[in-house]
Amino acid sequence: MTGRLDDEPYARAALTYLAEPADLRLDALVRARGAARTLEAIKAAPATAADPAARRAMARWQVRLAELPSADDIAGFCKAGIRLVCPGDPEWPVRLDDLGHASPYALWLRGSADLRFNCLRSVAIVGSRAATAYGSYVASEFAASVAARGWAVVSGGAYGVDAAAHRGALAADGVTVAVLACGVDVPYPAGHADLFDAITAQGVLVSEWPPGRTATRLRFLIRNRVIAALASGTLVVEAGRRSGALNSARHARDLGRPLMAVPGPITSDLSAGCHTIIRDWQGTLVTSAADVVECVSPIGTATDRAPAVLGRDALDLEEAAVLDALPLRGGRGPVRIAVEAGLDIDTVFRCLGALAAGGFAERCDQGWRARRA
Amino acid sequence: MTGRLDDEPYARAALTYLAEPADLRLDALVRARGAARTLEAIKAAPATAADPAARRAMARWQVRLAELPSADDIAGFCKAGIRLVCPGDPEWPVRLDDLGHASPYALWLRGSADLRFNCLRSVAIVGSRAATAYGSYVASEFAASVAARGWAVVSGGAYGVDAAAHRGALAADGVTVAVLACGVDVPYPAGHADLFDAITAQGVLVSEWPPGRTATRLRFLIRNRVIAALASGTLVVEAGRRSGALNSARHARDLGRPLMAVPGPITSDLSAGCHTIIRDWQGTLVTSAADVVECVSPIGTATDRAPAVLGRDALDLEEAAVLDALPLRGGRGPVRIAVEAGLDIDTVFRCLGALAAGGFAERCDQGWRARRA
Repeated sequence: MTGRLDDEPYARAALTYLAEPADLRLDALVRARGAARTLEAIKAAPATAADPAARRAMARWQVRLAELPSADDIAGFCKAGIRLVCPGDPEWPVRLDDLGHASPYALWLRGSADLRFNCLRSVAIVGSRAATAYGSYVASEFAASVAARGWAVVSGGAYGVDAAAHRGALAADGVTVAVLACGVDVPYPAGHADLFDAITAQGVLVSEWPPGRTATRLRFLIRNRVIAALASGTLVVEAGRRSGALNSARHARDLGRPLMAVPGPITSDLSAGCHTIIRDWQGTLVTSAADVVECVSPIGTATDRAPAVLGRDALDLEEAAVLDALPLRGGRGPVRIAVEAGLDIDTVFRCLGALAAGGFAERCDQGWRARRA
Repeated sequence: MTGRLDDEPYARAALTYLAEPADLRLDALVRARGAARTLEAIKAAPATAADPAARRAMARWQVRLAELPSADDIAGFCKAGIRLVCPGDPEWPVRLDDLGHASPYALWLRGSADLRFNCLRSVAIVGSRAATAYGSYVASEFAASVAARGWAVVSGGAYGVDAAAHRGALAADGVTVAVLACGVDVPYPAGHADLFDAITAQGVLVSEWPPGRTATRLRFLIRNRVIAALASGTLVVEAGRRSGALNSARHARDLGRPLMAVPGPITSDLSAGCHTIIRDWQGTLVTSAADVVECVSPIGTATDRAPAVLGRDALDLEEAAVLDALPLRGGRGPVRIAVEAGLDIDTVFRCLGALAAGGFAERCDQGWRARRA
């Protein structure tokens, strides 16, 4: 992000200021011309296109041109630990491509965890803001338990089920990902400022909106598709019949990802949405964290194994090559590992996931390193 | 039941004294020779058959010959309102034939309700003896609600879910059928003596065992297949992982009848069996009595209609003929109705069911009568 107009990452950052996510007209322009030329066109052109819809789109982007960040703003973001990830970057979660034309232009991140790697083995745990004691208990227990098994917990940072899920993962020293409907520097809800600080230290905050943006009702709905697309599968813990969590569940189903729900008393309105998912949406009824892991694992691979029960003999050739490329002290970035191992970056990420799950490798501040046996 | 040896009903009654239900060897003999000749053979033959299994069977029946009822005993049963129903009798529920070689030899009944007719539209509601407040509440609410819609409630007369289901149906002025694992004159459990009296007045007690027999653990298990076979479908409200209710559920599934379960908190051991039914046995998750009625109704016929919303024009020719054969005062038995209407007895039962459901006909002490519009 150098701030020059021909810089694609800068242009993508700028577009997150000018357009709301999932603006299909903007997506079409960026795919056709690239982000930098699209931004240039928005800055230069008066809204005079023949097509009225195209004119309206140009106009709605142009009204926000004054909001573009200055060089000082961007320096401030860097100082605050905020980073931008764009399609094609090593940390970009390729799963988001499943969203097609509604895929984010870019993501703003804040936190120590690698988004792409952690999403490879992750479960979205979502549900009602007004969770009952039952829902909060189940969300935090399941989150702690899947996190202890090496799965990241993705949620929305809201009160109720979301907060219980994040806290459960943090308590188990796991990684948790909060996908926000506001800027990653905006503590919304305000009561979660401490929670977001903890997630920044041990996980990552994610947003499609630039720093400073506030949440709106519509933004929560638009955000939900990203939660479903980032995670290996989505679990709904408690949800009323019209809960926003059902919106996330529908995205998971539409993406063909495993969809799960926790049953509850039929006398509780907050379990009605879960029962709908099980009965009418073919969601899997889960009653334990082991059920969840089984559901999101590729067939035949679900295990409750503790780290490092595999011998090195169980590694395939690529995994062994990546392990050989890892230092025992300090750390090494994925690109460097790819060069060392002679493998492409996607294979390196797959192998790092397998090695971490098997207890052979671990993340550190400098990238990755081998774990002593 | 005249007490003569060549009397098939008497012989079937006698066989319920000599053999436990579902004795496949006895079933084979009765099918081959009839009940009277089978009884005669048991009374006459020393246990000298060449086949050791046949010899052992004969011996186990003969040890109980001293328990056969006297003519006085039988007169006493009649006086106590106990009746015997055999295969082929108008009140015999033909659904039991689905049990094949494990079908009962005969059923002992006590109570005002017609067993066959009421089972045509019936739901078995079963579950744990140690039901929680949640299970008892759901069982009684669902039972009252399906009974108010004209469906009989079948259960096992035990503490917990069974009792709540019977009581819910009674409270809604509905018909309830208790299938016991002891004689219909044995108040077991003793605390249910009042409940059994109420069921006798407004429903019917059913047993494969003759009057006086006490319940054993094995008899409860053998009895469960009759609950599943009598009802249009089976609903499990609360059941632990090893509950006897799962045994009934398995019978319902094996018979191809609709199987339903009520979800509950995953933190409750008594809902674990229900979750197993939903997830692993393809049972339908139900959250309301309307769900239950929809599940047990033939496709497209489930309605929440109140009685008598249909006009006479909606009746088919056979239903209209049966309605014409019903008196407005007093009552008429099904055989007499069949003669009047010129229809076979099975068609008459089907039509009476439809007419009762539509509010055109009702049962009374003397049989059936038309309801005034």
